[in-house]
Amino acid sequence: MIGLGVMGRNLLLNMADHGFAVIGFDKDTEKAKALETSASAGTRVKGVVALEEMISQLQRPRRVMMLVPAGKPVDDVLESLKPLLEPGDIVIDGGNSHYTDTLRRVTATKEAGFHFMGVGVSGGEQGARTGPSIMPGGDQEAYAHVKPMLEAISAKVDGEPCVAYLGKGAAGHYVKMVHNGIEYAIMQLISESYRLLKAAGLDNDQLHEVYKKWNEGDMQSFLLEITADIFLQPDDKSGLRLIDVISDKAGSKGTGKWTSQDAMDLGVPATVIDTAVSMRTISAFRDERVQAAAIYKEPKIPVPADQQLFISQVQDALQFATIICYAQGMAMLHSASSALDMDIPLPQALKVWRGGCIIRSALLGTFYNAMQQSPGLPNLLLNATVADIIKGKEHNMRAVIVQAAQAGLPAAGFMAALSYFDAYRSEKLPTNLVQAQRDYFGAHTYQRIDMPGSFHTSWQHH
Amino acid sequence: MIGLGVMGRNLLLNMADHGFAVIGFDKDTEKAKALETSASAGTRVKGVVALEEMISQLQRPRRVMMLVPAGKPVDDVLESLKPLLEPGDIVIDGGNSHYTDTLRRVTATKEAGFHFMGVGVSGGEQGARTGPSIMPGGDQEAYAHVKPMLEAISAKVDGEPCVAYLGKGAAGHYVKMVHNGIEYAIMQLISESYRLLKAAGLDNDQLHEVYKKWNEGDMQSFLLEITADIFLQPDDKSGLRLIDVISDKAGSKGTGKWTSQDAMDLGVPATVIDTAVSMRTISAFRDERVQAAAIYKEPKIPVPADQQLFISQVQDALQFATIICYAQGMAMLHSASSALDMDIPLPQALKVWRGGCIIRSALLGTFYNAMQQSPGLPNLLLNATVADIIKGKEHNMRAVIVQAAQAGLPAAGFMAALSYFDAYRSEKLPTNLVQAQRDYFGAHTYQRIDMPGSFHTSWQHH
Repeated sequence: MIGLGVMGRNLLLNMADHGFAVIGFDKDTEKAKALETSASAGTRVKGVVALEEMISQLQRPRRVMMLVPAGKPVDDVLESLKPLLEPGDIVIDGGNSHYTDTLRRVTATKEAGFHFMGVGVSGGEQGARTGPSIMPGGDQEAYAHVKPMLEAISAKVDGEPCVAYLGKGAAGHYVKMVHNGIEYAIMQLISESYRLLKAAGLDNDQLHEVYKKWNEGDMQSFLLEITADIFLQPDDKSGLRLIDVISDKAGSKGTGKWTSQDAMDLGVPATVIDTAVSMRTISAFRDERVQAAAIYKEPKIPVPADQQLFISQVQDALQFATIICYAQGMAMLHSASSALDMDIPLPQALKVWRGGCIIRSALLGTFYNAMQQSPGLPNLLLNATVADIIKGKEHNMRAVIVQAAQAGLPAAGFMAALSYFDAYRSEKLPTNLVQAQRDYFGAHTYQRIDMPGSFHTSWQHH
Repeated sequence: MIGLGVMGRNLLLNMADHGFAVIGFDKDTEKAKALETSASAGTRVKGVVALEEMISQLQRPRRVMMLVPAGKPVDDVLESLKPLLEPGDIVIDGGNSHYTDTLRRVTATKEAGFHFMGVGVSGGEQGARTGPSIMPGGDQEAYAHVKPMLEAISAKVDGEPCVAYLGKGAAGHYVKMVHNGIEYAIMQLISESYRLLKAAGLDNDQLHEVYKKWNEGDMQSFLLEITADIFLQPDDKSGLRLIDVISDKAGSKGTGKWTSQDAMDLGVPATVIDTAVSMRTISAFRDERVQAAAIYKEPKIPVPADQQLFISQVQDALQFATIICYAQGMAMLHSASSALDMDIPLPQALKVWRGGCIIRSALLGTFYNAMQQSPGLPNLLLNATVADIIKGKEHNMRAVIVQAAQAGLPAAGFMAALSYFDAYRSEKLPTNLVQAQRDYFGAHTYQRIDMPGSFHTSWQHH
């Protein structure tokens, strides 16, 4: 393992716990030492500060994993590895690299004579130590050499490991990117549900109870689980609950943005992810928001007459919109799989996400079954089981949008989910007018519904 | 002029009409001839098929404009010009180049000893011939040499030319890109208003009347004007109105996508533009939409009890959302101006857009005045006059969203506009929960509202 930050160290200790003899390298002596002192008793763990020392002790083909920051550090590591490796050796980038960088490196290292795999790892610090979700892609022959170890350390669901070969080239990092986009979107939706429930008068204890209850049913998910926890966390400094003193300026590492930008290049709508990216962005404009809040007053918020009804409406809306997030992400993988020549086995991606990762959820079992039945399904919304769930929640989804719009509560993600759904299930969209306009002012031509071909009209001005 | 396609030819003839002696080059003999035959009587116009011939006849400093497809063709033209030009000569790219390409070319041509300017031109074929909106950026010294000609050929509003120096480097193409993003967004909004009015039972004649009436008031705009025309256009082939036989698959040349992708890199929300890009994209998924329409039935659409009231609500919603589009675009220019070191004079951009271009509208006068008053304004929504318009339309905007959500009518752009507004005018967003989640699973730290610094908590699991 190259790079013994929290993620690298925890992954390596996880490997050691499963009986593998491991060695970690970090230029930082403290980190190399910390690796050894934090190893479980009886495991075979060594920390070194010289890369050559590590490489010389590895069995062939060497299996070298790196967990370093994305970008130049990955290229630097590859450069320093070149003189040390031999044909057949395998280098794994377990970080959050952009998939285009990974593609470039796959080609470059092939010329240098060794294998390079981009492998997405999700689960945070805790997951890395006890069982992450692992998304490997690249050379299938190389994968065979690391498969037993990755299966051993991964999360398990129903006894099955949350790791599987996910396709050619940069497929592993691509699937991880889409995972992160979905993660952004679901987090945004949960935050909107929180805003709505708060507006309905719920305090932190009640919020805890609501999310805890939701997490016990068919909405069970890691993100709901930690959300329930969050509302109980005390704050030593203020005596308040911690949630109430945390600033609303949300950070990001940019991987959600990558997903949106790539969806646009691919020509696949990922509107809830786009919205989540924008809402994190707008959160940073605090000074402007304070000015705007002084100019534009909120409509008087009607406390819902029936609080329990409202809570169940928000529950359904959250589930509805969450399903739309996964549907948009999977539609993206469906298109990218062929457009970028990755041959992603879509059911496997869902299987891998069922455990260990941030977006794990009871829903993934349903989606996995849907995609197993028809692996070529372009969109989860076209599956009968998913459709039944969506139909059951649709009425309450609409009711929540109505109340949010009336009360002036920002519900950008919910609205993006509903408007995507209503566009996707429209046999006829009003974009015929857009085509007419484009042809009118720019002679861009249009297609007709009654005959093939491209047409241009000299539009008459009245 | 290099490239005598419709835009290049029309711009050149426009210059000739204003007394300038011009010469056009195209490898295509037909196009070179067509230039001369379509020139107005008494003008000095010459078409040639040899680049050297054209260059040798120009006065110094030579002013060479090109209108060729974006991408490699621009680089090819520059390459062939290099041996022919002398220090001080000026090359203008009048096409839709991506601003990053323009920046690269500015630097490369500086080394080669001549000036390069990226100049956005909007107005379609017709505008190019009779008066486009022109967005020049780059070397200010070089601009002085082309200013009289650009001012002569541009559209005029209140006697003022719709052209002005818009900043350093690639500022011209950047402003044009944002113009195109706003154009995408407004076209999407108009198409949504069309869908809503159609659902309320209006036929094409009534639609014509409504848009014609809207265009006569304070919503006057080029896009509303042509929309009114479109509903009257007959179709020879079917005997129907043309609008009803045009396919809903909307094309795009990608410039809207560039705007959204760049807004994300810049960290400025441009949600209505993002949505417009996605809705054009989703229009291409016709086969899936047909399948989805069979699975998900539309809620029964209630015909509004009062059709006239509904029309006026949609009118206000369209105006509200259109203002949000301009606000997002201008906020983007505000940020980009400093972030990309372009020093864009924001009031001038609005002045240039008042006439000749696709997004010209009576609103731009209001916006121009607002930015003149406070050129550093980060967002048009913070201007008092704009705020008064928005407040006057807000109630009807909400009413339209409520009815669209209930009736299942896709209103993605309208919803994106309202949810942006409601987030922007929120002093406190629920993204504190997003920060808590990020710190819980990824130790990403958070800021507090009551003290400076970054904090991490070991969150308790219950």
